[in-house]
Amino acid sequence: MNVGVYGLGRFGIFWAQELARHNNNVIAYSRSIKDPLYNIRIVSEEEVLSAPILFICVSISSFESVLTKIAPKIKPGTIVIDTCSVKIYPSKIMKKLLPFNVYCIASHPMFGPDSGKDGLANLPMVIYPLNCPPSLYKEVYDEFSKWDLHLLEMSPDSHDREAAWSQGITHFVGRVLDELALQPTALATTGYNRLMSIVEQTCNDPLQLFYDLQRYNPYAKQMIMGLKGSLDYVMQELTEQEQ
Amino acid sequence: MNVGVYGLGRFGIFWAQELARHNNNVIAYSRSIKDPLYNIRIVSEEEVLSAPILFICVSISSFESVLTKIAPKIKPGTIVIDTCSVKIYPSKIMKKLLPFNVYCIASHPMFGPDSGKDGLANLPMVIYPLNCPPSLYKEVYDEFSKWDLHLLEMSPDSHDREAAWSQGITHFVGRVLDELALQPTALATTGYNRLMSIVEQTCNDPLQLFYDLQRYNPYAKQMIMGLKGSLDYVMQELTEQEQ
Repeated sequence: MNVGVYGLGRFGIFWAQELARHNNNVIAYSRSIKDPLYNIRIVSEEEVLSAPILFICVSISSFESVLTKIAPKIKPGTIVIDTCSVKIYPSKIMKKLLPFNVYCIASHPMFGPDSGKDGLANLPMVIYPLNCPPSLYKEVYDEFSKWDLHLLEMSPDSHDREAAWSQGITHFVGRVLDELALQPTALATTGYNRLMSIVEQTCNDPLQLFYDLQRYNPYAKQMIMGLKGSLDYVMQELTEQEQ
Repeated sequence: MNVGVYGLGRFGIFWAQELARHNNNVIAYSRSIKDPLYNIRIVSEEEVLSAPILFICVSISSFESVLTKIAPKIKPGTIVIDTCSVKIYPSKIMKKLLPFNVYCIASHPMFGPDSGKDGLANLPMVIYPLNCPPSLYKEVYDEFSKWDLHLLEMSPDSHDREAAWSQGITHFVGRVLDELALQPTALATTGYNRLMSIVEQTCNDPLQLFYDLQRYNPYAKQMIMGLKGSLDYVMQELTEQEQ
């Protein structure tokens, strides 16, 4: 496929490289990165918007302003694919801001430079056609089918509900533990080492991603309140045991 | 070594088997298990107390009552070694209840049937002489030196302080997440799978161990309050981001 990647943050670079590694022709645009990346041609904003398939790899919180700015410049027939870690919010924005003859697909590759560093085998990727002719959607779907991923077609609502209680809770626990500045210790049990690796992995991602994951997922509040309720419950049980 | 194991709960069975696997002659006593275990001779309470080295593998909360009952029956010269997951509390009990000519060593093998199932290489074990002639202590120390463990001599106070913020916090997080009945999902990220494995491993241990770990470690309260404070802080930060 001939693809463009708009945005080269931590995930955008990783994603452009994965697309190139899977034999796609990749052009990419970034406000800040102008030096070439291996197998990826860095182009102007105007040129990246001319790609027939355009991946948007900007932060969730800047998604609306970026799309507002670029939507008028995207040619009819282009397939716009977001890669946000929440799905209801960017899907609404794409349907609202893109003209009907610019197509859009929601996607969430649920891995990144850390979890994908040893390959993508069996890692989940969610995809969902929002406004796309079946034949064009099939092209995109078939491409990712070849990547040895666990490719799942799932609605934005189902995604956000399930992601809040899996990816979302993992990031939340990682950030809560990170605030405690846990240290390596000679006493580290297997479980503690695993806990530390979760902190490290979730906190390698930008803090903005964490905030966005929680703020733009309508199911995150339930998860956070659940976690708080559960902590209070376990504390209460401990107190009762002592009496 | 000729050793006795008093108590065959989940950890006691595992420990007796590890001792036997490392070429020690093991006799064991349990209130409930009377059938033979591979390479371990199940004996009466009276007989197990005649072993020159006696490992106590009962729950932390029953440690005092068990020791009160057996202390008068233990012969001078015996080395009593506890294996509790906290160290200040059982150390005090042993020093209080055992006559001066019955020796005692504090130990905490920081692994169990789950974390030790693929072998003990580099897993931590804490050991500390409370009342033991150096030559006898050396015999015990040297035995565990040969096990390919990460053997650490550490005072009960240092152990409890560090363990609260490593093993303790891991078990606490595991139980808090377990109350939420998290489910496997096709969307599971690498981090979520790791989180689920922590829940599974910590909750395979008896609930009593969890309560005891927190109640009998004087540093657990600091850890729990820290965790609660950190959760409140992250929630507050999220709220401020939204404004």
